[in-house]
Order: sequence, then C-alpha cells, then structure tokens
Amino acid sequence: MANKRKIINDPVFGFISVPNDLVFDVLQHPYVQRLSRIRQMGLSFFVYPGATHTRFLHSLGAMYLMQEAQTVLRQKGIDISHQEGIAADVAILLHDVGHGPFSHVLENTLISGVCHEDISLSMMQRLNQQMAGKLDMAVSIFTDCYPRHFLHQLISSQLDVDRLDYLSRDSFFCGVSEGTVASARILKMLGVVDDRLVVEAKGIYSIEKFLVARRLMYWQVYLHKTSVAAEQMLIYILRRAKELAHRGEELPCSPALRYFLYNDITAVDFNGNDNIIDEYAALDDSDILSAVKSWQNSNDKVLAVLSRAFTSRQLFKVKLLEQPLNPQEKETLTAQYMKHFGVDEYEAKYFYDIYSVSKDTYSQQDDSIDIIFNDGTIKDISEASDMLNHDTLTRRVVKHYLFYYKIV
Amino acid sequence: MANKRKIINDPVFGFISVPNDLVFDVLQHPYVQRLSRIRQMGLSFFVYPGATHTRFLHSLGAMYLMQEAQTVLRQKGIDISHQEGIAADVAILLHDVGHGPFSHVLENTLISGVCHEDISLSMMQRLNQQMAGKLDMAVSIFTDCYPRHFLHQLISSQLDVDRLDYLSRDSFFCGVSEGTVASARILKMLGVVDDRLVVEAKGIYSIEKFLVARRLMYWQVYLHKTSVAAEQMLIYILRRAKELAHRGEELPCSPALRYFLYNDITAVDFNGNDNIIDEYAALDDSDILSAVKSWQNSNDKVLAVLSRAFTSRQLFKVKLLEQPLNPQEKETLTAQYMKHFGVDEYEAKYFYDIYSVSKDTYSQQDDSIDIIFNDGTIKDISEASDMLNHDTLTRRVVKHYLFYYKIV
Amino acid sequence: MANKRKIINDPVFGFISVPNDLVFDVLQHPYVQRLSRIRQMGLSFFVYPGATHTRFLHSLGAMYLMQEAQTVLRQKGIDISHQEGIAADVAILLHDVGHGPFSHVLENTLISGVCHEDISLSMMQRLNQQMAGKLDMAVSIFTDCYPRHFLHQLISSQLDVDRLDYLSRDSFFCGVSEGTVASARILKMLGVVDDRLVVEAKGIYSIEKFLVARRLMYWQVYLHKTSVAAEQMLIYILRRAKELAHRGEELPCSPALRYFLYNDITAVDFNGNDNIIDEYAALDDSDILSAVKSWQNSNDKVLAVLSRAFTSRQLFKVKLLEQPLNPQEKETLTAQYMKHFGVDEYEAKYFYDIYSVSKDTYSQQDDSIDIIFNDGTIKDISEASDMLNHDTLTRRVVKHYLFYYKIV
Amino acid sequence: MANKRKIINDPVFGFISVPNDLVFDVLQHPYVQRLSRIRQMGLSFFVYPGATHTRFLHSLGAMYLMQEAQTVLRQKGIDISHQEGIAADVAILLHDVGHGPFSHVLENTLISGVCHEDISLSMMQRLNQQMAGKLDMAVSIFTDCYPRHFLHQLISSQLDVDRLDYLSRDSFFCGVSEGTVASARILKMLGVVDDRLVVEAKGIYSIEKFLVARRLMYWQVYLHKTSVAAEQMLIYILRRAKELAHRGEELPCSPALRYFLYNDITAVDFNGNDNIIDEYAALDDSDILSAVKSWQNSNDKVLAVLSRAFTSRQLFKVKLLEQPLNPQEKETLTAQYMKHFGVDEYEAKYFYDIYSVSKDTYSQQDDSIDIIFNDGTIKDISEASDMLNHDTLTRRVVKHYLFYYKIV
Repeated sequence: MANKRKIINDPVFGFISVPNDLVFDVLQHPYVQRLSRIRQMGLSFFVYPGATHTRFLHSLGAMYLMQEAQTVLRQKGIDISHQEGIAADVAILLHDVGHGPFSHVLENTLISGVCHEDISLSMMQRLNQQMAGKLDMAVSIFTDCYPRHFLHQLISSQLDVDRLDYLSRDSFFCGVSEGTVASARILKMLGVVDDRLVVEAKGIYSIEKFLVARRLMYWQVYLHKTSVAAEQMLIYILRRAKELAHRGEELPCSPALRYFLYNDITAVDFNGNDNIIDEYAALDDSDILSAVKSWQNSNDKVLAVLSRAFTSRQLFKVKLLEQPLNPQEKETLTAQYMKHFGVDEYEAKYFYDIYSVSKDTYSQQDDSIDIIFNDGTIKDISEASDMLNHDTLTRRVVKHYLFYYKIV
Repeated sequence: MANKRKIINDPVFGFISVPNDLVFDVLQHPYVQRLSRIRQMGLSFFVYPGATHTRFLHSLGAMYLMQEAQTVLRQKGIDISHQEGIAADVAILLHDVGHGPFSHVLENTLISGVCHEDISLSMMQRLNQQMAGKLDMAVSIFTDCYPRHFLHQLISSQLDVDRLDYLSRDSFFCGVSEGTVASARILKMLGVVDDRLVVEAKGIYSIEKFLVARRLMYWQVYLHKTSVAAEQMLIYILRRAKELAHRGEELPCSPALRYFLYNDITAVDFNGNDNIIDEYAALDDSDILSAVKSWQNSNDKVLAVLSRAFTSRQLFKVKLLEQPLNPQEKETLTAQYMKHFGVDEYEAKYFYDIYSVSKDTYSQQDDSIDIIFNDGTIKDISEASDMLNHDTLTRRVVKHYLFYYKIV
Repeated sequence: MANKRKIINDPVFGFISVPNDLVFDVLQHPYVQRLSRIRQMGLSFFVYPGATHTRFLHSLGAMYLMQEAQTVLRQKGIDISHQEGIAADVAILLHDVGHGPFSHVLENTLISGVCHEDISLSMMQRLNQQMAGKLDMAVSIFTDCYPRHFLHQLISSQLDVDRLDYLSRDSFFCGVSEGTVASARILKMLGVVDDRLVVEAKGIYSIEKFLVARRLMYWQVYLHKTSVAAEQMLIYILRRAKELAHRGEELPCSPALRYFLYNDITAVDFNGNDNIIDEYAALDDSDILSAVKSWQNSNDKVLAVLSRAFTSRQLFKVKLLEQPLNPQEKETLTAQYMKHFGVDEYEAKYFYDIYSVSKDTYSQQDDSIDIIFNDGTIKDISEASDMLNHDTLTRRVVKHYLFYYKIV
Repeated sequence: MANKRKIINDPVFGFISVPNDLVFDVLQHPYVQRLSRIRQMGLSFFVYPGATHTRFLHSLGAMYLMQEAQTVLRQKGIDISHQEGIAADVAILLHDVGHGPFSHVLENTLISGVCHEDISLSMMQRLNQQMAGKLDMAVSIFTDCYPRHFLHQLISSQLDVDRLDYLSRDSFFCGVSEGTVASARILKMLGVVDDRLVVEAKGIYSIEKFLVARRLMYWQVYLHKTSVAAEQMLIYILRRAKELAHRGEELPCSPALRYFLYNDITAVDFNGNDNIIDEYAALDDSDILSAVKSWQNSNDKVLAVLSRAFTSRQLFKVKLLEQPLNPQEKETLTAQYMKHFGVDEYEAKYFYDIYSVSKDTYSQQDDSIDIIFNDGTIKDISEASDMLNHDTLTRRVVKHYLFYYKIV
C-alpha cells in the first residue's frame, strides 16, 4: 500500500502535509494535477519573470493555511470535527479547480458566459460522483450550504485563506516584498462568534496592512499595464482564431484547444455535461502557448502579426487616457493600421483597444471583515479602523487605457 | 525612442538592471524570449512544485552576478573595460540559449548526438550575424578565445556565476534552504592572478560550503528519484512517438515538434544550418506537454498508457538496486507487462528501465578552484581544505535504479 | 598602515562598505562605538526579545541606504560630488550620536530640557573640532545650512534613510514582517526637482505602504503597552533615585551615572561644555541596567520594590482608560499602596501613573513627501493618494493608559 | 488570574508558544529573565554588529525546536506523555541558565574551576526546590537519569536542539547565511530506535550540511580572530582587576561584580551554597561593560590602558603563528611595552599573549549521530557519509595566535 502521508516542500510556507488518504487521492486526480500546468498569475511573467508558480501550488498553500486556521480555532475552543476539518481542506484544495489557462482571457473568447467559479463547482461535483460521495461535505461547505458558515468564510470571504495565500505567494514569486501578508499573525487573531469569523481588535493594524497590501498588489502587479496589454493581445489572438475557425479555416492546435475553437460552448452546455467538462479538463497553458507560437506562420495577416508580437514579447503599447477616444482619433488609428498592414477596416481594429480597469480595496457588498473588541462589540473594519475610512476603502478606482500595436 | 534601461524584479536578487541597449536587444530577441517558456529545472516540479522558474530568469540572475563580480574585481584594481564588461554580460545571458525543453530528455530522443552547449554556440553565432558582429567579443569570451581567460572562467568553470546563480535560485524556488549559496560573499573573495580567478584564503569555508551545497542539491533535488523517473518516462514516450512517426503514423503535435519527430536530426545537420536552428528555436516546454497530453488518446497502447501516466503524475516507481538485474528478473518483468497490456516483448520493455546516475562533488579535470593565501601561494581547494580531502571530493558516486510502471 | 576599507556584515542589507578613511575614523571614534552599547529600541526587548540591536547597527544601515540613494540619483543625472557623498554618509552616521541610553527615559529624569537631537549636534561639532574641520560639510548638511536641501532631506524628512532603515530593521529584529519597507524600491523611485526630493508617481503604492507600515510599527511595536509600561517604570525608578541622591543618600552606580544623578544638568549646561559632553558620552545601557539591579537591595522601599519589579520583568499592568481617573479613584489607589507598602502618600504615587500616547501617520508640518507625475506636476502624498486622504493621514490618535503596580 | 499562554515573537522561527503555566513560571523567574541581559555570542558583536541577541531568546528558540521534535516523534508513533513533553521543554529552557556574562572570560578569571554546565545544574536544582519539586523530571532528563535516553539526547548530543537553534540563530543575527541549518527538515527525519535518536538515511545530506555549517560557523564566526582578541583583552582586564582587588585597591564596580572580584570563589564554594548562587545570578553583561568603562580612568596603567582600548574597540592585533614564539621574541616584546608604558616586566606581559584555538567538526567521543537505513541498519554519520570520512570529520584543527597591543 502506498504511503499517502506525503510532505511537500513549499518555498513560501516550508513543509505542507497531506493530512489523510482522501486529500491525497484528490491531489492525485487529473483535474488537480492539471493545475500544475496552469500559471497562477497568467501572463504576469512578462513583467515579473519569477511569477511562473502554478495554481496547484497556490491550492496547496491555501490548504496549509486552512489547516493552520483550524489549529488556531481549535485551541480557542471552537469545536471542528476531524471530518469537518478534512472537508474544509478538500474544499479549499478544489476552490480553483475550474480555472482555465489564462482564465480571464478564455472567459472573453473561447467560452462565453461561463465563469471559472461555476466550472469549479461542476468539476467538484463530478469528482464527488467518481469518489462515491466522499466529497459531500466539502461541496456543501464550498456552496455555503453547510450549517457552519464560518467554514465557508475561510474559503470564500474578504479574509479567506485563498487571499491570504495568493497575496503572500504572488508577492514572493514576483519579488515584490510589499505584498507580503502576515498570514500567520492574522490567523492567530481569528475567532468565531455566532458562526461568523471575527478578528481580535489588536489585529486591526494587520488587517489594515492586509488591505493596503492587496491594493498595492492589484495596481502594481495584477493590473500592471504591460500584463494587461499581454492579456488584451492574447484575447485578440484567440478571437481572431475563433473567427477564422468559424470560417472553416484550418489552424494548427492541440485537440483540446480545437474543441473550444471550433465549437461554440456556452454556459448552458456546461451544465452537467460530462463530456464538455472532460474536454475542458484537458486544456492548460501549454495548448495556448504552443498554438499561438505556430500561428506566427498563419496566412491570415492579423493572426500572424499578433501571434508573432505576442511570442516575441512585442506587446501592445499602453497609454493612460484622460478621456475616451473621440471618433476621429479612432478613425486615424484605424486608417494607419489599414495602410501599414494592407488590411480592411474591420481587421484594423484588431490592432488597438480601449480598456478600463477598476478595483475597490474593500467591498461592503461582500462578506465583511468583522473586528471584535474586548467588550464583545463587533464592528466592520471600515468602521473599526480610524485610518481606512468607509469612503476611501470602498471607493472604486477606474482607469482607462489605450492599447495599440506599435509600428516600428 | 524606447527606454531600454529596464529594471527587472527578481525574487532572488532584488532588482536586476539592463545595463545598456545591446543587452536589451539581446534580451528581447526571440531566441532569448523563448527561454521564458522553458523551465530551468525541467520536470522537477513533479517533486518540488515551486520549481517552475525559467531559464530566462536564471540567465538574468547569472548576468546580475556577472555584474557584481565585475564591480568587485574593478574595486580590487583589475581593469575590465566597459566593452569587456558588456561582452561578458551578453555571453552569460546567452550561455544557456541552446537549451531545449527538458534538455536531457531531448538529447536522448529527438536530437541525436547534439548537446545543448554546441547549440548555444550555433545560436549565439547566428545572433551575432543578425546583429552585425556586435557580439564578437561575447562569442570570443564564451569560446575562451578571448585573451583574458578569467572572463571565460566567470562564465564557465567550477565556480562560475552560472553555478552560483542556479544553486541559489533552484534552492529558493524548491524551498530547500540548504542549497543556498552565499554568492555575494564568494564574489567578494574573488581576485585575478596571472589571468586566472582565485579565491582569498578566508573564503575557504564558503567554498567548502558551496561544494557541499552543490552535492546536496544534486542528490536531494536534481537527481531525486521521482524527477529522474519522470524524465525516464518522458524519454520513453518520445522514443515511442518517434518510432510511430517513422512508421508513418499520424500523431497530433505542434509544427515545431513535428519537425523533430518526423525528421532525423543529428549533430551534422545542425552545423551552420540556419533552418534547423530556427525550427529548434520554435520548440519549448509547451509543445512537449501539450503533445503528450493529446497522445493519451493514441491508438498505440504503449504511447497511450505512458502518456496518461505522465499527465496524471502516475510516474514510474523506483527501486535502488544493489546489483544489476539478472536476465531472469528482466524476463519476469517483461512477461508481466506483455500479459497485462497485451503487448509484444519489444513493447513491454517500454514499461521498465535500469538507469545509473553518477556525480562527483568536484572534478579535477575541470578548471580548478584556486585558493590564494596571504603569502601569495595558490592551492587547489582539494588541497587547501583540511576537511574536503582530495579523495572524498573527487570520488564519483554512482547509483543504479530500476524504474518500472506500477500496475494497479 | 591599517586597511580601512572594511566590509561589515549586516543581517538586514548584507554587506555594508566603509567607503573611505574619514568614515572609518568616524566609525572608530568612542562616541560612535558607544552606540554599540545602546539598544536601538530601548526596552522593547521586554516584549520582542529579538529587539536587542544597537543604534550603531542602525547608523550603519542608514549609511548603506544613503549610499544606495546616491547611486540612484547619480544614475538619474543628479550631480553629487565625491565630497558631498562622503559628507552625507558621515552626517547620517552621526545623526543619532547624541542618543542616550533609553533616550525617552533619560530626557524625563536625569537630564532636563535637552533633547537628543541637540546633543547630537553638540557631539558632532566637538568631533569636527577634533578632526580639524573635516566634518564641516557633514555638519552643514545635517543642520540644513548646506545649499543643496535634498541632501538634508535624505537625512531628515518624512522619507529619510533614517526611517527607511529603522522601520525595516526594527521589524526584522522584532520578527514583525508587516513593518518591512521596500527601501530598495522606494530609493529607485527618488528624484530631485528644484533641490527637493520627489518620488515618481508609480511609487505611490509603495509610499502608501510605507506610511501604513510606519503606523503599524508605532501602534503595534513602539507604543506597545508593555514597552511603555517598562519605560514608565524605569522613569519612576530614576526619578526616585535622583530624589534620594538630592537628599544625600548614597546609591551604588557607575561614575558615569553618578554624574547625572548627583548633579542637575540642564540644556544650558550642555552648550559647548565639553566636560558634560564627555560625561554624557560615558553613559550607556549597561550603567542603567547594572545600577537598577543593585538598587533592588536599597533601604528605600519605593526604589527597592520598583527595581526588583523591573529586573524581574514584573512590569506595571496597563489599562486603557475611556476617560481620565477621577480624584476618588486616585485616592483609592493611593490608599491601597500606602497600606500595602507602609509608605506615605507622596511615595504611594510612585506605584501608578496615567500616561497618554499620541501619534499621527503623516504630518503636514514636517517636510512633505512629494509625488511627481509624468507631466511634471508635483503633489503632496496626502493629495496624490486616492486612498490615504488628508484627514485620515494627518489625524492625531491619542490613547490614555493607566499604569499600576500589581500587588500579588 | 493572569493569562499564561503567551505567544512570543521570534524573528527566526515566528511565533513561539508558552505551552503551560509551569513553563510560564520558569520563564518569569529572575534566573531566566537574567538571560535577557546576557548576549548569546559574547563579544562577537565587535565583528558582527547584529550579534546582540540574548541567551534568553536562544533558550526560547531551543524550546520551540523541542516542541517541534516532539510533534514529529509523536506523529511517528513514539509515545511521549504530556508530562514528559513539558519536562523536556523546561529542561531545554534551563540548559544555559548557568551561563555567566562572557562565560569563557569569567571561567578564566573571576571564578576558578567551575564550568557553566555545573552552575546550570546547581541553579536548576535550586529552582526545583523553590518550585516544590515540579522540575524533578526536567532535572532528571537534563542529567540523563531519566530512563528515556532520547529525551536527554534532544537536549544534549551532537544533534541536539541546542545546536540546531544556535547555529540557525547565530547565523541569522550575524548575517552569515551560510550557517543556516535546515532545522525543520532535520527534525522531520528524526526517529527513535532502542531509546536512541536516529536520522533517516535520506537525511544524510542535511546532516553533512549541518556539520559543514557548524564547522564554518566555528572558524568564520565563533573563533574569528577579532572576537577572540576581544575576549583575550577582557580576560587580561579582569585578571588585572582581580590582582588589584587582592592588593586592596578600590575599583568602581557594581555590588554583584564586587563579590567575585574581591572574593576567591572556586568550584567547591558553589556546591549547594545558595548565597553564592544568588550572587552569581545577579551578574550579567551590564556589570562587566559598565565596570570596564569606568576603569578607563584607573590609576593603574595596565588596567587603564586595556580598559580604554577595549571600550574604544582598539582591540589586540592578531598574528597567526607558524611556530611558538621563542624566548628572545618574547623578551623583545616585553621590553617594548616596558619602555612604552613605563611598566615593569610582569606588567608588560599584560599587553600580549599567545593563544591556541582548536576545534573538531564531529567528535566520536560524544554521543554519535546515528543514521538509520531502510533495511534497519544503523551507522554513525562518519561511516554513513561517503563524503565526510572518519578522518576528516574527527580531525582536530589547531591554530596558534599571537595577540598584542598595537602601539600607535
């Protein structure tokens, strides 16, 4: 019998233990193994070359923090049964299982109207079937149907182990020390009141710091204009490829990618359709990167030019716009590309784009971060903090960019 | 005009500066950009899931250390001209440019008789042509034709910046703190005597530590039996694919991979053949991983079984052998696989392998590590160290493994 | 001739170089060596046992950052002469030279009306005399009399290398990762416009993070109630000792401490009085700690009880007060201690105290942190940041504590 | 009732938990609190200015590793009762309690014939009395009288948690990354066979690395010639002070130091003599540093000169000797100091010294480090390692130094 009590080396948290056989089996499932071929940060490696860590490692890290959180809560007298603990471990391990390669890109091109959260649930349910219901409680925690809400909050809320892991991990692999989050300290401050997670008042500064770190990571790293430029370029490449596929043109690509390129898959199709789920589960970063590379030699001018640019890191240039482009500016741009590449007006629009990014630091629509004071009163962090007031915390910042192909 | 004085974030060394336009242009060349799609540690991510960093980042890191080394040597009065400095930067940046995806695997399957060092040189020369000879001095340092030998030693010797970078970097991304090398300290100790690198005597302990760290990284990480098992499995997959290709069977794969699968490319072909070099430069990790994934559905039993196992991380099991298998043991194994898979004797041998790994800690055939004492005498580290004596340092350790597919 | 180009190991920044002979001589001066016997964080080690690093190491670290800042500014075309560079190095090396042991404590007990900044200047001037005017420019930069204001800002402003060092260093030694400041990144963003330091707009997030880290360090570390309790206890001990000394009682203490215990030294005395400066320069942490230890056996009840409590870490207990104590509460407390210790009313007040701490995150009275945008406009960070608005940044937070001796 | 379940911040290991009330009470005892005023690395701060961490923090860190070791062993099925666990925690917390300030110095001057290990035991026994026998088991484990030998080995052997902590900790605070020991990994490899600690075979490389790191720390850090020079200087200062005290001269010093300066305390006196133990427990670094500082103004030439040199870091110069000084060389040196300082021949010998340091990397006299192989065989590391052979590992390296006061 194989030893399933593995210990896995993680450069961020040290040793991560696989707590029991069920978790080991989940970990070894092709659905989860596939995450080891999907970069956690998508195309950010174009800007931060260290950012090639995978969703597999992130899922492991989040599970580690989940185990730590359970230890802390148990020490504080919160009863969490062994079975609940394992179910929560499995739920967090699978929380990202539905992520496709470059998820944001895919959701705008190959697959319409489906978000990765829904796919995660579909895949989790299929996995549960295969495992004869052993994941029932995990699914129930994941969907917030399990009576103990705080377990769900650990998986999905504004202070969940998902965020605690990815902020620390992404900043580690990018080499951006400022994104580091003191996850160990924050976990030590956790408690449960009325079935909801609360943070001890002396943890306020750590929470402030966590929110500021998150804000910094968004604007400096995740929404870095060059990463977004790469993403926009890949979106245009896949849109064009899909367009050509519709027209019946033959494009080199892997069978897995072909399925989504030559078929129109929408949310409805996904529902309980095991076949589509399996096709989806065959897709990872390598299919996209390998295909784009081969499209450099396409006969289609648009596809070839963009694929070459993407592969050689000649990404879209980016300009921050004070105000939207007016029609005449657009016309000038279009004309320029028509002339340069000898393409028609429709095709010329593949060479530039206007894109808006927006992000709030803390959302009061979501599950709040609750601070508990010594006298037992509980306040939302946006009230409890005397620094991060309601307005500034919840204000949505929007920025408009012009992306354009630079003719040399 | 674009700003080419970039600063790049590296989680290991902090900020890495691109020193001038030439280096920037080299960095942006598709040959070098391709390295950002090749994992530095090949299949080690199966064991150390953090180990997904790229040869691109390693090359940058080695260039950083090269710059540091130059600063130290200049402070000690060694004259290194600006042009020499840049040439050495370029040479180290390109030292790995010829690495294919999973190099060791490729050199045993798709390409015969060519090692990546030779390809690096070919690619560097082609790059030099394209850049109108601007890389002349870099090539000359790389091939040790440049009169100042120590510059070559910084690129290729037993204490080169290549090793200083990859030991620190690989241990960082694996989370194996023991492999960390005090590169900054070692560089501070460097000097040049008679055109050769020397290390100040007070650096002996750091050198001992460096050799022990290297030894540890080899046995614990690079030659970890599970990594080697994954490598052997991939070798068998590609060999089988090539065999099928020879027979004229159609296998899904990218155009780049197809070239090497359906043609027999040997060392001779590479020589100055620009076409082959370009085909080779189109190949990266994604082609291999994507193809193997699609081969899971092959009609060929051997290819399908091994591809499925590889993709789902059901790797070969490994047994350390005290002595070689005798013919009868081999027969038993063969018979077992014939029966289980319904394959013939020849095919059955795809399911197990005997493999020997060997490594010395320090080789006296190579350029030695020279220690200089206060009185000016110079000794090889294997003499200078009172701990690491000649015998133990240079002894070659060999281990024999049996790899086999585990029937469940 | 001695080699004065030393390299010093620093756990925070790695290797710190002594750039020339003048800096070496300053470093070796007894005034500066004395800083190696003064803890940077005073009594914080009672809470964070790792926080025993010295003002000497902090001064070195600040000098390292000063050198880094100069490198960055020079690369951006700001001309800083060699002499100016060295002068700024010396100025930052000496910026804390006037700190006494547990400065805050001393300034409330042994020395009246003198702050350590003034003493730093006096000592620097005396040093300059001894060195025949070699520190003229350093003194001039320190006092902001040198025509180039930005050099002074590097030493003393809201974004000076002093803060950049101590936040990183203190968080490192305390093990409070959240205080870490990305000093390298912030320095990379520095520029000089109209002789004033500015920060590039893309550095806004790092500055926000820096201010939040600073805020966190103040409330979580520097003003930690147990540290403040220890400080208050030491203040009461030294006040009592001085009182007894006034009465002519003989207390064991070192000659250096005796001078300040048995004489009344005020700001006026310090002015250019070399003798007092030398007495002051003889004082460090060891005199205070050793004396308090020996006072455990004093015949004076108050001194003995408090000294014993301090030495055994039975520190004052702390209660956060919603509102000031009313006269009756005070009376009750006083009566309690009178009864317990058999002391009179006056003496009883040595066993409790009300103390208020206050801190702002960013002060607009001080030199502002100026952000420069791509179009050349410059804004104060409190305007430039869309998160940290004017009000919240500059609001002064005040907390009132009751400290009291706990009778067991 | 006070909350005694404290969590303490440690920059090396993160959070350290105080597991129960007994441990808390031990931690708060003046004997243990005194360790927070004793530097772990004595005078090494003269060379590594970060090395000011205390024996208190080291003791805490070793306790943390002890807890980790227990967790690992329990997971492997080794039964360790709660009581045994706590006793081992207490034993390691107290293992260094008998260390005086600058122990090596004291053992050569103020106290004759007593080593700190013996004093540790005496103090532990006295503590046990005060605590009504609650430390019985801890004392019994410490003295290896407890039936379970492996618990003693965790406290004192060649792979004990003492060494695992101090190597990592000292390298951390010195900024010498090469001394880092992968304590977490080594602990994971521990097992118990026949009541003895063993290390799993796959841990061999980590053990090799541990021994090499230890060797490096000894030669590069602990026995750094400047640290040893500082130590020798302090030995001479205290010897001279004791000599003067014998003659009846009055020297400023704290009462605690006075006791050992004006009395002759030997091993015999210590035995069960509570008074002496209490006097000893009053002594820490501050007494020595403060006294030496005040002796700068002594009328005795020797004491004044050496005390001034020590306080201003004008330490003895060091020369590595190929062979012992011959009588004539000694005479010349003596004459030189007689002339320069106007002292007699006997006094002149206070200005230079010959000193030999020696160290082995691994001692076979001590408890061995045992490696267990998969087949159950157990070998000593010096046999199990194919790199670190018996001879080299156990060879004692000796170096002879001449220390001398440099006349300027």
